[in-house]
Formats: sequence, C-alpha cells, structure tokens
Amino acid sequence: MDKSAETVDHCQVVFQPVGRRVAVSPDMTLLEAGRTAGLVLSANCGGIGVCGRCRVQILEGRMDEPGESEHYCLSKEDLSAGTRLACRARIRTDVSVHVPAGFMSGTQRLQTDGEHAALECDPMIERRDITLPQPAAKSCPADLTRLAGELSLRLGPRLWAARPEAVAQLSLLARKDPCALTVYLNGGDILGFSALRRPAVGIAVDLGCTKIAGYLIDLHSGRQLGAGGIANPQISYGEDLITRLVYALQGSGEAERMARVVREAIDSVGRDLCRQADIDPREVVDLCVVGNTAMMHLLLQLPIEQLLHAPFIAAFDGDMNVDAMSLGLRYAPGARVHILPSIGGFVGADHVAMILAHDIDRRQQAVIGIDVGTNTEIVLYEPKRKLMLNTSVPSGPAFEGGHIHDGMRAAAGAIEKVSAHRGNLSFKTVDSGQPVGLCGSGVVDLVAQLWRTGRVNDRGHLLRTDPRVRKGEQGMEYLVVPASQSGHGRDIVFTQGDVSEVQLAKAAIYAGIASLLEIAGLRADEVGDLIVAGAFGSHLDLESAVDIGALPRLRNARYAQVGNAAGVGAKMALVSCKARARARSIAAGATRIELKDHPNFNRILARATRFPVSGQTTPSEEIKPSETT
Amino acid sequence: MDKSAETVDHCQVVFQPVGRRVAVSPDMTLLEAGRTAGLVLSANCGGIGVCGRCRVQILEGRMDEPGESEHYCLSKEDLSAGTRLACRARIRTDVSVHVPAGFMSGTQRLQTDGEHAALECDPMIERRDITLPQPAAKSCPADLTRLAGELSLRLGPRLWAARPEAVAQLSLLARKDPCALTVYLNGGDILGFSALRRPAVGIAVDLGCTKIAGYLIDLHSGRQLGAGGIANPQISYGEDLITRLVYALQGSGEAERMARVVREAIDSVGRDLCRQADIDPREVVDLCVVGNTAMMHLLLQLPIEQLLHAPFIAAFDGDMNVDAMSLGLRYAPGARVHILPSIGGFVGADHVAMILAHDIDRRQQAVIGIDVGTNTEIVLYEPKRKLMLNTSVPSGPAFEGGHIHDGMRAAAGAIEKVSAHRGNLSFKTVDSGQPVGLCGSGVVDLVAQLWRTGRVNDRGHLLRTDPRVRKGEQGMEYLVVPASQSGHGRDIVFTQGDVSEVQLAKAAIYAGIASLLEIAGLRADEVGDLIVAGAFGSHLDLESAVDIGALPRLRNARYAQVGNAAGVGAKMALVSCKARARARSIAAGATRIELKDHPNFNRILARATRFPVSGQTTPSEEIKPSETT
Repeated sequence: MDKSAETVDHCQVVFQPVGRRVAVSPDMTLLEAGRTAGLVLSANCGGIGVCGRCRVQILEGRMDEPGESEHYCLSKEDLSAGTRLACRARIRTDVSVHVPAGFMSGTQRLQTDGEHAALECDPMIERRDITLPQPAAKSCPADLTRLAGELSLRLGPRLWAARPEAVAQLSLLARKDPCALTVYLNGGDILGFSALRRPAVGIAVDLGCTKIAGYLIDLHSGRQLGAGGIANPQISYGEDLITRLVYALQGSGEAERMARVVREAIDSVGRDLCRQADIDPREVVDLCVVGNTAMMHLLLQLPIEQLLHAPFIAAFDGDMNVDAMSLGLRYAPGARVHILPSIGGFVGADHVAMILAHDIDRRQQAVIGIDVGTNTEIVLYEPKRKLMLNTSVPSGPAFEGGHIHDGMRAAAGAIEKVSAHRGNLSFKTVDSGQPVGLCGSGVVDLVAQLWRTGRVNDRGHLLRTDPRVRKGEQGMEYLVVPASQSGHGRDIVFTQGDVSEVQLAKAAIYAGIASLLEIAGLRADEVGDLIVAGAFGSHLDLESAVDIGALPRLRNARYAQVGNAAGVGAKMALVSCKARARARSIAAGATRIELKDHPNFNRILARATRFPVSGQTTPSEEIKPSETT
Repeated sequence: MDKSAETVDHCQVVFQPVGRRVAVSPDMTLLEAGRTAGLVLSANCGGIGVCGRCRVQILEGRMDEPGESEHYCLSKEDLSAGTRLACRARIRTDVSVHVPAGFMSGTQRLQTDGEHAALECDPMIERRDITLPQPAAKSCPADLTRLAGELSLRLGPRLWAARPEAVAQLSLLARKDPCALTVYLNGGDILGFSALRRPAVGIAVDLGCTKIAGYLIDLHSGRQLGAGGIANPQISYGEDLITRLVYALQGSGEAERMARVVREAIDSVGRDLCRQADIDPREVVDLCVVGNTAMMHLLLQLPIEQLLHAPFIAAFDGDMNVDAMSLGLRYAPGARVHILPSIGGFVGADHVAMILAHDIDRRQQAVIGIDVGTNTEIVLYEPKRKLMLNTSVPSGPAFEGGHIHDGMRAAAGAIEKVSAHRGNLSFKTVDSGQPVGLCGSGVVDLVAQLWRTGRVNDRGHLLRTDPRVRKGEQGMEYLVVPASQSGHGRDIVFTQGDVSEVQLAKAAIYAGIASLLEIAGLRADEVGDLIVAGAFGSHLDLESAVDIGALPRLRNARYAQVGNAAGVGAKMALVSCKARARARSIAAGATRIELKDHPNFNRILARATRFPVSGQTTPSEEIKPSETT
C-alpha cells in the first residue's frame, strides 16, 4: 500500500469503522478527504487546528510530519501512537484511518432485532432476598460465614464459595444494620449482591464480524430491558476475518489488542444498556456470547494459526463458561460468560444460535437457514433422516458494501433500495440522506435492476444500452448518481469490477445451498422453508436476491427474513439451562460439510456466477414470503 | 512529622524496607544520611548525580527542590511520584524513604526455615501423562474436545472444563505430532499443561507483616525444591499493621497499591524459586497462602475498616480458593491459591498453620504456642477438655528492632547476641559486620544483661552504676558501642525509652499467656510444652527471654524454638487435602479470647512490666530446652 508521495497522483483513503473509501489527491487533509467521501465529520474550530477535537488514528500508510498545532494539541504519546488531527494531517500515501464515533455525525445502522416469541426462562442463576444476621457482641463470625449460615438455613447446605470481589461487596453491605440484600447464586457459588429486591439480569451478545449486538434481559421474566449495538472495533484492524486473523498472528501484542478492543466493546455495550435501563452493572450476573469460530478465538485470545488452513481445527468447540472478570467485563464479581458450542471450522456458535432460535432442528419439513455475511453459514435440515448438514462459504464483503467502488455500510446516505420505472432507476437512501454510496441491499437491488433492464447480460457484462453505462477509469461502469445529485459532489458509479464481486459472492451462497441439497438428495421443491438471517438478510429485497441468484428459487418454500437470529438464540440460551442443553445436542448432532470435498461444488459454483443461474426458473415467478417463522 | 526546616537542628530519617533510623542534620543528602545510618548504599558515579542509579522514593516528609541533575536523570512522572536521587536530594524535614533492593548492598536475613517431618502428600491436584489423539482428516473435533475424549477414556467421564488460557496452552501444544504432554487436573477442571513427564509443583507462602517466605514443593513427593524470602514491600507504607490498614483506608487507589505490591512480591518469590529449581512456572498448579487476618484482607483487597475497631469482624474466616490469575500470579492458567481458615480477629490463618504444623490440637499434655511479631498470637491447648484458647496481643515492633533508638532488622551489622563477662558486655553481630544497631534478639539479650548486671532495676530504670550509663539527649541511656568501634562512626546507645518499649512488649506477651492459663484454670507447672515460633523466636536466647519475662518460666515444660511454623503449616496444607480438612476443624474448634474482656488482664499486664515479673521464680533456675518438637 505504501507508494512514495513523489510518484502518486492520487491516494486511496479508507475511513474505518464505516468502511468508506475515497481516492483523493495527495496533500489533501484527512478532513477534506473525509468530506470528499461524504462523511459528516465535525470540526469544532472550523478546521484551523486549535480545538483538538478531530483526533483520528492512522492505522496504515504515511502522513506528513505533524506541525506546530498538532504538537500543541497532542501529546508525544498520542503522536507516536499514530493519533493526528484530521484537519491538519496531510495524506502522503494510501492510508487507512480510524474515525472515533464522537467525531462522525450520524451513525451506522446496526441491526439488532430478531423475530422471536416470548423467552422461556429456566436460568442458571438463583436470586434470593435475605437479611444478614448481625454479629453478636461476644462471638463475631465473619461476614461471609454469617451469610453462608443464613443461606444453608434457607436453601439447605451447599459448599458456599465466593470470589474475593464478591466477599468485598458483601463486607461493605454488611456494615449496615439491618442489612437486607439480594444475593445471586449459581449452585453454591455466590456471584454477587445487590440492594434488596433487585432483579437478576443478563446480557446476550451477538459478536459479529461487523457489529456487536447486545440485549439486556431479566433472567427470571425474560423481559428485554434494552437492546443496542455498535460497530465491531476490530474493523480497524481488518475488514474481513482473514485479515484480522493475519493481523493477530503478528505477535502477542497484536492478538492481545484484538481481544482487548472487542472485550472493551462488549463491556461498553452492556454498560450503556444498564445505564439506559437503570440497572446497576453489578446486577448483571450472567452473559451469553455467540459468534463465529474465529471471532470467539479472537475474543478469548486463543491460538488462531490453525484456523487459517485446512482442516481448520478449532481450539475448542464445546460450550464454555468463562469468568466475565477475566475478560475485563465489569459486572457482578462472579458473573460468567456462557459461550455456545460450535459445529466446527467456521460454522460457529452463532450458527448454532440461529438453529436454536428458529427451531430448525425440530421442523417437520426440510428447511434451509442461512446467515449472510463475509462468510455465509448455511444449514439444511431434513427431518425424516434427522440429517443436519452445515457449511460455510466465503461470500466476501460485497453484500456489506465492501470491495465495491462506491460501497459503504448502512449509514446515512447509503442507497439501500433501487426501483425501476420504465427502465429508469430511482433510489431510497438510509435516513433519506443525500446519496453517497451503496450498502449491501442497494448493491443487490442495483444488480438485479441492471440485469432486469438489460444493462447487464447473463455473464455479468455491463452493456452500453444506455448513456449511463460508460467507460470509466477502471473499465466499464454504470453511473448510479451523477455528481450534481450526490451528497459529496462526485459521481457514484457501479463498475464492471463491482458486478464481478457480486457474482462471486452470490455464486458462493447459491452453490453452498445447491451442494447441500445435492448431498442430502433433496430436490429444491422439497424444501418447506428458507430462513434468511442477519442484518443484510432482513433489509434485502427477496425478489432481487432470487433474481440475481444469491438465493435459490424454491417453488414450495416460505421465505422468512428473520433478522438477527444469532442474537435471538443467544437470548434464549442466556435465560435457559434447557436451551443451553439443546444447543449442545444441536452441535453434537450436526454434520459439517467441507464443500471443497464435494465433487460437484466447483461445477455448481461456476454455473452460479451467471444471471440467472442456469437451470433456474425465470424471474417472473413470485416467491412466497413466510407468514410465520 | 513535618517540622519546618528553619527551626530544626536535626531530622529523623527512616530507611525502608530495613527499618533503619538515623537522626541527621538537615541539608544532608539522603546518601550521606544512609551511610551515617550504617547502610551500605552503592553510588556508581560516586554521588555526583550523573549515573541516575541511586533512585529512592520519598514516602513521607519534605526534601529540597530537585536540581538540574535530577531533572536530567528523572522524568517528570518520576519526580512527581516522589522519586529522587539519593546523592542529590537534601533533607528538609523528618523523612521516610524507600530504598530499592538493588541499591542497597547486603541483604536482610529472613527466616524461612521451620522444623518439620517429611510432608504427607494427598494433593488436590492430579497429573497425567497423555498423548493427544491427532485429528482425523475428515472429522476434526477441536483440541479441547479431543483431549476431553482421551481423559474420559482413561479416567472415566467428568464434566471437563478449562479456562481460555489453558485452552490456549493446549492448542499450541496440539500442533505437534505426536503430541505428548502432562495435563494437570483438579476434578474435571483442566488447570494447565506441561511437557511430558513433568512434575506438579506447588508454592506455600507465609505472608508475614515483615517478610514473605515461599517454598517450592513437589506436590506428589513432598520434596522441597527451594525456599526463599523477601521483605514484605508493604513495609514502605507502614511498619506495623495498623499503619498499613490506615494507609489502605485512604482510598481505593491506596488499597489497590497495598494489594498489588504484595501480590507482585509473592509472584516474584515464586518465580525466583522456579528459576533456581529449573521449574517452568506453568508447572506450578497449586498454592497455599497463610498470614494474619489483616494481611489476608490486604492481599485480597477486602474492606478493612471493620478490622480497626471492636468487635474486629473479618470479611471471611473460612478457607477459600482464589484463582491465582485473578491475583496476578502467573503460574498454571488454572492454578488456585488455597487460603487457610482463621479463628477470628487478628488470630489468622498463620496461627492455624502453626497449630497444624506442631500438632498442637493432638497433644496429650497442655501446650502453649506463641508466634512473636508486632502482634503476638498465642494458643493454649488443654487436651482433657479439648479446650483450645487463642488470642492476639499487640506486642509492638520492639522485638523486631522497631521503635528502638538504634534498632534495626536482622541485617549485616545488627547486634544479635549480648554476653556478659564480669559485668562487661560483648556482642555478636549478623554476618560479623561492624556493629550498626540492634536487632530483636540483641535487644532482648541486652535488656537481660543490663538487668542481670544491675544496670536496670526491677522497674526498668537505667541506673548510673557504670560510666556507660549516662545522660543522653533523650534522657538516660546506655552506651552499647562507642563511635570509635561502630560501623558508622557514631555511638550505638540504648535509651530509657527503649527499655520502656521492651517492657510494654514483653508484658503484653507475658500477660497474654498468663491470662489464658488463668481462663483455662491451669497452673504454670501443668504445661508440658512451650512452642516459640517465628523468626524472632528462633534467634531468641530463651534464658534472656524468660529472665526479662517475655516468656513465663514453666517448671515442667519443654521449650522449643521451631522457626517458621506458619510456613510449615502452609506446606502441609499445600500438599494435602487431609491437612486442609484438619485446618478447617482446628478453626472450627478454637475459641478466641478477647483479653480486654478478661477482668484480670490489666492487673496482670501492669505486674508484667517489672523485671522479673513479680511472683515469678528467680532467674537462676534453668529452663529445659525441648529435644523434640
């Protein structure tokens, strides 16, 4: 990426965590570059380098030397850590830069909702309201000893144990007379304390590659007290999983940093939820985290080298309970993080959570579940033989707006819907902002419309049927929004390269599903349900996805867009021991398919890059949306 | 302590952690003051302020403003944290200063040995040598799953669990083929791994107020692989417990600092022992720590305010297992620290360890055990009624050389023995160094000799029977060593105030023992054994101690000086589940006596300040040293 400043006529700037890319002339400031990219960056002092608010961090690439105002506003430590003022720092080479949330106005849309019925509660954790006996004048057993006596009296004898941090909490509370409190228990383990009659609360976390979604749940009623999400800060170290794994492999410092930022993010999502719901974080006594295998390894700082090559052996694949405190999560002293089991390779705990959330293992008809992301996980369940096939295909970041010339994530100004009226395309943007780029669902819509309107042929070539299809710097391109109508005064285009990215992505998903059907010996019309999970999946236009062949056309299937299914599964396992046991049996009964071992896979994959996929029925047939999930 | 520099003609300087005190004229540098105090301080550059090696930390009091060379050698952070160069910083008021170990030549003698038979092993921890099955090409269960399968095959099914750090260790080892390793287990908990056929090792720690002693033990053979000790670094924050508790009470930062320094010290003692014995610290899978109640509360960072006033309620008094990692101890990932139970108030886990070590709870004759320190713990066991009375008396630091004009701890040059020949006293010093002060055993010997030779009367007054008894700056004093013969060129004196300190200390111990005998209804001649534990106790001249009335004269008792009994108890509990269970039953069966509630205590205490204690037999009778312990 490092080009010398003397020879380049433009530099590529990538703004993280939104993933917005822009090519600008060297010597531009980062603030100017950000604005060129259509980002709404705030600069309190108007960009004259005195307020010091526009701090950004250079992740990769070279900038000019810091000048006087940066030396004034930033410490030596800041500067040597790559912190710069966006309004002063000038670009020298291609750079990747992290923009803190507070500095960027308008936030990225992060899907946290998923469809589900009321949660069935059967939690690990007990809560008890008790009054601690006061010490007698003569004999004064310790605080913990008096508590253990009272608990044994009420619950029968157990081997009571507590971490020092829980004992500290008790000992401070015990100085009050009378001392009435709520105690949280897991068997004989005393997890922590709260004021009298406070609830036991848990946090379910869907740790995604792109976003982290958190849910605050009352463990005994199942009531959701709050939900929220933030971008996964690891994005700053790599947009896709492989890049992050390679980054973490550089050394223990890098691996530790990757673990730390994601732990801090989980902590901060949870603490924000607590604040909003007026819950003391020490009332959070249980957590459940799901994510794919690589994300869980990075979270727990496990070795990852073996995840980068076949046979992709995980360090662990069973469920696991980890002390929240050892991960730096500051909740009840004894709070634990339950991690759902995974199936193997990249088919992880989030996939098991999706199966759990939508009862895929209990269906009466064949069902396909997919969670589209940089990697797309697919499950096919066939109830007669209780056959559950699972696989993961590398679908790349195109459906998240990545690797697309004017792609971006679903933030303000992202084109998310494309409609055609008599061959003319019109657009809907996130938050109705001025268009600045295309997010995943917009990309799918656009490709579908380009194909439907004949601007793209069945091999994916852009055709000059229209003055908007033109020769650009990088070959053929379609002019989506001219500079005069865009939010940043530059053309928004969709290039021939972008079409290819989409072809590779959609073919991977399609071929994954088709291969599993073939392996199971099922015909497409035998499938009763297709469940599309994930943020992208819920904003996706199903017609468009089926038309371009990202999803197969299943004649008898109900299509359901269920939103964040992994998050729902995490919530179910958070509040229920039975759900945890079921997740264990799902993982134990699942078969992982390595598609590269399937002899027909490459043939199917090649065919699936076409529009429409050969052998597929025509786009005119309607697909059935599902009524229920 | 803060006097204004204008009015003082001398300032008191206390060097920590050795506890050496010296009065010097203001404006002296700390280096000069240290040398005046007889400390061997190294100054690489000869004290001209350029090498920056003589860094010390000002704990209390005021120094002059740092000059050019200190600004050159020290960072702003250093200076604002109170770091100075000893060769440049000049004294303005009374100061307390911490001298890092590397800067002081010659180390303090730290008692770590205690008498005991071979350890009976029955450890918590299992070790197994196994070969991890390699993953098959088609199915590739995770590393932990393959290990759990192999363990279940060999040991029967258990609920196998491991911390992420242990999984990480396994996963790195699992990349080798064949993968043969030693696994450490505690029930179903997988604690960690080592190379094939390596031992399971543990560390026993006696966490004393003054010193920290550590023992590296093979858990299955009981073989001691090493022993070592260092000064408790908390000394820098207070010589006695109460001062430390008050310091820790100032805020959470102070409490955290007190916990951190002692945790780091334990970690470093252990790692040093591992290095010397060629043991990988990850082979350390279990620890056992004993200490008094306050020390354990400081270690675990528990609330301590309630320990400062009656009824002295501890936060915990049962035994406890704490994750070593959560204390920052870097051994096997799953290593735990077992903490022995305590009896209540200041009668702590170290006292229980002493009872355990010397089978005090199993004796056939009445027995007294004492561990002399700033607080002295006393146990009296009467086998017929299985009566075990325990108490703690505040004996102060005089017997450790504290609060004594020329007192010091047992470091090179400390007078540790005083003999009399025809009324003339002669001295033996630690390491035969030039005399610079008196350590505890020297203080006791000196007082005994002063009394025997008529220089001190029965009320403790120094009498002018000798030209060496003279009027000093602080009243009467005895010239122990004239300046011409001392290691620092100044007189070593023993003041009237020093005699009083000893009177208070010895009276507290004597009155504690006498009160317990009275409460138990036992006569002195019914006691079969007197066990004197602790560093001071083992260097003590028993005749001197009995003569001055620090210990009672028990006509039929064997006197045993057993060394570090608490350390021995910690070792026994480290390697044996049975010993841990016995410690639990000792604590459960013990009665704590609050001496201030005993109506005769103050009367006994007042009488016990005399030489000899009234009612006691004359010094000429010989006491019986014990043959066995």
